[in-house]
Amino acid sequence: MNQIHPIDVILHKRDGAALSDEEIQGFVRAIVERTGERQLVTDAQIAAFLMAVFLKGLDARELATLTAAMRFSGDTFDASSLKTFTIDKHSTGGVGDKTSLLIAPILAAAGIATPTSEEVPGICVPMISGRSLGHTGGTLDKLETIPGFNTQLGLAQLAEVLRRCGAALIGQTPRIVPADRTLYALRDHTGTVESPFLITASIMSKKLAESLNALVLDVKVGSGAFMPSYEQSRFLAELMVQTGERAGTRTVALLTNMEQPLGRFSGNWVEVWECVDIMKQVRHPMSADLIELSNLLSGSMLHLAGRAKTPEEGAGLADEILTSGAAYRAWLGIVEAQGGDLSVFEDPASHHRPQASTVIKASRPGYLASMDCKQVGWAVQRLGAGRAKPGDPVSAHAGIESHAKLGQRVEEGQALFTLFSEDESLLEEPRKMLLDTLVISEKPVNAPPLLREVVSAAGHESIS
Amino acid sequence: MNQIHPIDVILHKRDGAALSDEEIQGFVRAIVERTGERQLVTDAQIAAFLMAVFLKGLDARELATLTAAMRFSGDTFDASSLKTFTIDKHSTGGVGDKTSLLIAPILAAAGIATPTSEEVPGICVPMISGRSLGHTGGTLDKLETIPGFNTQLGLAQLAEVLRRCGAALIGQTPRIVPADRTLYALRDHTGTVESPFLITASIMSKKLAESLNALVLDVKVGSGAFMPSYEQSRFLAELMVQTGERAGTRTVALLTNMEQPLGRFSGNWVEVWECVDIMKQVRHPMSADLIELSNLLSGSMLHLAGRAKTPEEGAGLADEILTSGAAYRAWLGIVEAQGGDLSVFEDPASHHRPQASTVIKASRPGYLASMDCKQVGWAVQRLGAGRAKPGDPVSAHAGIESHAKLGQRVEEGQALFTLFSEDESLLEEPRKMLLDTLVISEKPVNAPPLLREVVSAAGHESIS
Repeated sequence: MNQIHPIDVILHKRDGAALSDEEIQGFVRAIVERTGERQLVTDAQIAAFLMAVFLKGLDARELATLTAAMRFSGDTFDASSLKTFTIDKHSTGGVGDKTSLLIAPILAAAGIATPTSEEVPGICVPMISGRSLGHTGGTLDKLETIPGFNTQLGLAQLAEVLRRCGAALIGQTPRIVPADRTLYALRDHTGTVESPFLITASIMSKKLAESLNALVLDVKVGSGAFMPSYEQSRFLAELMVQTGERAGTRTVALLTNMEQPLGRFSGNWVEVWECVDIMKQVRHPMSADLIELSNLLSGSMLHLAGRAKTPEEGAGLADEILTSGAAYRAWLGIVEAQGGDLSVFEDPASHHRPQASTVIKASRPGYLASMDCKQVGWAVQRLGAGRAKPGDPVSAHAGIESHAKLGQRVEEGQALFTLFSEDESLLEEPRKMLLDTLVISEKPVNAPPLLREVVSAAGHESIS
Repeated sequence: MNQIHPIDVILHKRDGAALSDEEIQGFVRAIVERTGERQLVTDAQIAAFLMAVFLKGLDARELATLTAAMRFSGDTFDASSLKTFTIDKHSTGGVGDKTSLLIAPILAAAGIATPTSEEVPGICVPMISGRSLGHTGGTLDKLETIPGFNTQLGLAQLAEVLRRCGAALIGQTPRIVPADRTLYALRDHTGTVESPFLITASIMSKKLAESLNALVLDVKVGSGAFMPSYEQSRFLAELMVQTGERAGTRTVALLTNMEQPLGRFSGNWVEVWECVDIMKQVRHPMSADLIELSNLLSGSMLHLAGRAKTPEEGAGLADEILTSGAAYRAWLGIVEAQGGDLSVFEDPASHHRPQASTVIKASRPGYLASMDCKQVGWAVQRLGAGRAKPGDPVSAHAGIESHAKLGQRVEEGQALFTLFSEDESLLEEPRKMLLDTLVISEKPVNAPPLLREVVSAAGHESIS
């Protein structure tokens, strides 16, 4: 193997060249293998490389190679010994987006419902999730409001939970994709976060480290999405699908609207409560969009897993699994296997104990026309439910409840949002942030559709 | 003053915006004011900024502001109390380029020759020079072969030598332009050296820190130049002239050919020897191009300093000062003032004491057609005269002597170069490097002209 000099890799990318596989692999290896004494590559060199990639981009092969080099930079999880169809879902992050809490049990129930056979293997969902950051919520923070629930399983424990339950919901371990840990920390403070190439390599290296047969991506568009325009979200979806397919993982991306918080609640325990209600057949009207999206994503996964002829048929199957109570039974099994206290699900509302709350009412009659969903997400964070920077603590009880959805008729004085916090002094700023962003129009407005487009290896399928 | 966040400056430049003066000043201040505990800006952030500037460029105002912020990041030298016309010369670096050793005494002699008056002030040349690096030589390394010569003067000592002699030849102090020290070290290992914007800010901040009335730049073109093409050298010259003029310093750039080593010798003591010979009226035929370039640059400086109506008249005056012995007297004064032992100039050849030498001869008759002058510079470095990285020691006695110039008729077996080293084992590689790069053609070839173009605030004046 030839020695790769980081400076040469930087120079080549800076000058717009396509990097060789050896260069990319050597650069990532230098990142992972450096220690205090052996600075094979410095932070400054990594930063220069990231900025060069940000401004010059990567072609499909370079991106696939970078993703693979990162994927194999540490431990990987391989469920092939379980002889199941391994599948996962990943969302680019939203507000009130708690579909993982429904999808994992739906898929687990579908896998259990169809016994393993030669033609139709069981399903295995090794869902490795993240934490809240900035305006977006995090699955781990929500799960950790369940007393005893352990998200920090090792890979052997993960395999055991999957064998028993078909799905598991755990956090990143330090030994999975260590290259991303270094790269992400540097991207965060060198202005190189919003690169679709670097985002793809970061997300896909972690997902592909689960050795997936298939992956469904929920790429958000709209005011609450990470990417600033529809076109940039679609480009990101295309890069991720292409990178997944090149790695041999069937990959489909759904472009879905994030113009308002998804479902009834945004926060931590309140989101668990909302999902438990749904799985217990307590369907609150504000949860309709959450159930629809969860069924769409589950449907696409069930289709890819060979459980349905079409994604639409899969979505119908997902809804049946929800309404039959099978998903709730699978949920209880997963939570129990991960050490969680099931008693909190008996009366979840009673475990929501904010110290302070305030209600935002419509200032005039009309139709709820728009809001800046990212601003709503930041309001949730400021209430205490999220974190401004990694490592900050989060509140279990802070959050918001939505009482109206976009397009809906509202009367003057009607409650639009209730804000919850553990500290009364934290209510005022989020209250102002929400008041600033809510627009009520006199004329009726159309509610935005949830699913906008499907991106797959076969091409795009426009929905709206 | 508003707080400038380095991350915002990076993001703006990354996205192609023109940075505000406050952003540029705040970023440079953060670089200089950071300490171990207060990392106002990290190396990684500086590297990301440098790569963004490399790829997005700077407009004329941004470049002037960056240069000024760097210039004033530490101590500056101000000779205004001497009531003289302060002028300097800077070269982008070459092989055998020893014009500083002739120009400083020529200008000093011209300043002394015309006594200070209201109309025509004296001349002051505070020449702050650098060291050999890579394929280029360094004035300080040459001067330090003179026993006792002290290049490490403080600014007060510098003023004293200037008051007595009209010129001084010293090294950078750590307190002059400290921002460049940090930026240059990072550029060197992050692939951001060859940016004309960053080169301009680096060179001009250091030159303008001498509070100059005027500056003449020798921007090299050709195979031994730092910039890879004529157009890039010209663009660099334009940026430097524009930046100097914006700072109120009359600035002129001469684009000059660096297709072969300048003069007779390339090395350290041998270059001092060659200049002493010239000033003592011992004009070796191989020194003709060196004398021509020295007179051209001195002429331009004398013109700017009001000593000549045109640069051409100034060049004539410079040659008179050389041939009259006035330059040599000024030289002895400067060396004495800086502590140097004048006795070595009595018989300079006797102080050239290499331990080993080898002669490269023409392999066939013809005309010396071309060489890769950068390769020749690297050969000089490998002989021991230069350094591959900052801090390496250099040999006083290593170097090469040119016995033929481009365009010259040579016979088979005629000596082309003599190589000198203090270690016989160091001769072989440079010998091969030179043999590889020398081209002898059957047909006559034209010698390249020395001066190609003059770039000034008034525009370009093409010479050839």
